Amino acid sequence: MRVSYKNRKVLITGGLGFIGSSLAIHLVREGARVVIVDNSVLGCGANLFNIAPVATDVELIHASIADTSALAEPLRGCEVIFNLAGEISHIHSMAMPERDLEINTLAQIHFLTAVTRSIPGVRVVYAGTRQVYGAPDYLPVDEKHPINPVDFNGVHKYAATMYHLMLSNMGQLDAVVLRMTNVYGPRIALDVPCQGFLGTFIRKVATGQSLEIFGDGRQLRDPVYVDDIVEASLAAGAAGQVRNRSYNAGGPEPLSMADIAAIACNSAGVPEPTFREFPEDRKMIDIGSYYTDSTLIRGDLGWSATVRFQEGFRRTLDYYREHLPHYLDPSNPSPSCKLDLRPTVPTVKKATIVPA
Amino acid sequence: MRVSYKNRKVLITGGLGFIGSSLAIHLVREGARVVIVDNSVLGCGANLFNIAPVATDVELIHASIADTSALAEPLRGCEVIFNLAGEISHIHSMAMPERDLEINTLAQIHFLTAVTRSIPGVRVVYAGTRQVYGAPDYLPVDEKHPINPVDFNGVHKYAATMYHLMLSNMGQLDAVVLRMTNVYGPRIALDVPCQGFLGTFIRKVATGQSLEIFGDGRQLRDPVYVDDIVEASLAAGAAGQVRNRSYNAGGPEPLSMADIAAIACNSAGVPEPTFREFPEDRKMIDIGSYYTDSTLIRGDLGWSATVRFQEGFRRTLDYYREHLPHYLDPSNPSPSCKLDLRPTVPTVKKATIVPA
Repeated sequence: MRVSYKNRKVLITGGLGFIGSSLAIHLVREGARVVIVDNSVLGCGANLFNIAPVATDVELIHASIADTSALAEPLRGCEVIFNLAGEISHIHSMAMPERDLEINTLAQIHFLTAVTRSIPGVRVVYAGTRQVYGAPDYLPVDEKHPINPVDFNGVHKYAATMYHLMLSNMGQLDAVVLRMTNVYGPRIALDVPCQGFLGTFIRKVATGQSLEIFGDGRQLRDPVYVDDIVEASLAAGAAGQVRNRSYNAGGPEPLSMADIAAIACNSAGVPEPTFREFPEDRKMIDIGSYYTDSTLIRGDLGWSATVRFQEGFRRTLDYYREHLPHYLDPSNPSPSCKLDLRPTVPTVKKATIVPA
Repeated sequence: MRVSYKNRKVLITGGLGFIGSSLAIHLVREGARVVIVDNSVLGCGANLFNIAPVATDVELIHASIADTSALAEPLRGCEVIFNLAGEISHIHSMAMPERDLEINTLAQIHFLTAVTRSIPGVRVVYAGTRQVYGAPDYLPVDEKHPINPVDFNGVHKYAATMYHLMLSNMGQLDAVVLRMTNVYGPRIALDVPCQGFLGTFIRKVATGQSLEIFGDGRQLRDPVYVDDIVEASLAAGAAGQVRNRSYNAGGPEPLSMADIAAIACNSAGVPEPTFREFPEDRKMIDIGSYYTDSTLIRGDLGWSATVRFQEGFRRTLDYYREHLPHYLDPSNPSPSCKLDLRPTVPTVKKATIVPA
């Protein structure tokens, strides 16, 4: 029903990551001319294998989105930008808030400045996050919910969201922000254990381990399958004038963490999950139950999630059964988040300040 | 009625600026032990003359708030922090967004990290701004109004606001954010013409010039006199457990821009104001009418503005009649914003990333 991407030039920032690569594959299959900008920042989920099915069909620019000179050619003639580059880890952001600010906020200033100069008014689909709402005041969470991030990552993702909205109000961009709930599916990073619980769940059951749940497991989530998020992004990118600029995009059903874990364990044939106390550092940023009101995006863009968790998780496991070695070092099946990051933290190159 | 500051150690960031220095003078007179941290970033309104009345009574640390080693001693034993350091110019932020991010956001990460490690749980009064609300959806604007900044400065001030609130929710700080409307009074910078209209109005009429108003002059504002804002800040710093963490603090009455300009011209004995079209760059960030609902702070902290504009403006003019040469280079009575800033932009020293 939506406008076709055939022969249209699109740019995907963070296109080696989980959602970005999934988008790239779909867009190539639709006949789009896909350019990926990604500099594989450690801890952000980039994996060259993610784009293996379309490796010869996309143009890959190994550059930071802050590297405005490297962007000149990729941006020229671009019709839609899917802006997914960034860091999503709560835990990285609390340990290294400046790094999170550089990656999620400073880099976006450079990127959006280049975009507004090169192709003013272009449609940009920005990958926002439900994290900006923090612990919900009410359920399900709609777009009017107060903004109340519980970590530096949420603050910085929201700052970047505000850049997109502000520049759109000025007519310099035509942005649509998708505030995504927990996304899972093929190509999610398994070696970055602090990017949310779903990657960890998949890694564990795919390597024959059972799951541990923090708390009583009654808190709700609405995981959304990556193909659904790809479809939401394509709809947002192809829509004409949008009635709203921020849309929540959630899964098809709220499930308890206990149910999510049970489905994951059953799918993989590993023992039932066990329960344990919340560790202190996790408790501080736990938000209780969360699920999404996707009414607005359904009405405006005709999108709603279609893949139920049982089915999506099965497809995900099938993918990792085939490709696990590309996602996990077999000598280190339980990578530790902080230790992996401390020794070398590559950060976004700092550009010189050049007043407009 | 409020708790006394006598013999209490307080720290004021940005204490050489307009509001910070006014606070310092009041606090010294109350017998507080005042430490100022200020590195006089060009364009942010610092002026050593501002603290002339108490120059020998305060401890002045010439350092960036991002310089955590310089902060160790000033923070020790500190009971209340008034966190006012920052850049408030719309125009600077649009021309140099990275500079605004460094000053208003990155520097606050460093500062608040030092604060939470050295004196966890301390009361911090953060100088927020009405700018975060953008163009009002309704009037008067209360604390529930959506956040919708119209410039990079508003985004970054809001990011810093979220840091304060997030760290308070975690128990690492005890912050109170005052979202101030347009503040005016003695010590406002006159040589930084892009920090809002009131400094420009004062500079012009104090040097015998009349005023130009953009548009029809019917848009409303509620200017608040600096002594009232000092009183609000002292109340916020001295209050016990607060019922809310964000308070709007506005002036005693909404006035039209035409009325504000007429009062200013009449007070100074210069010709009546004239009207002209909005310049394009201003129009983009104009927010129409704005005035504040201060109900929440009145109920919780017993504060409301008391100084009417006519009286406050008279006191302001009296101050500048006496001290004008300390605020304005007589050879350059109409300083230009962008030109002054472009050649040398001192920015906050970038600290090394040290994971916690």
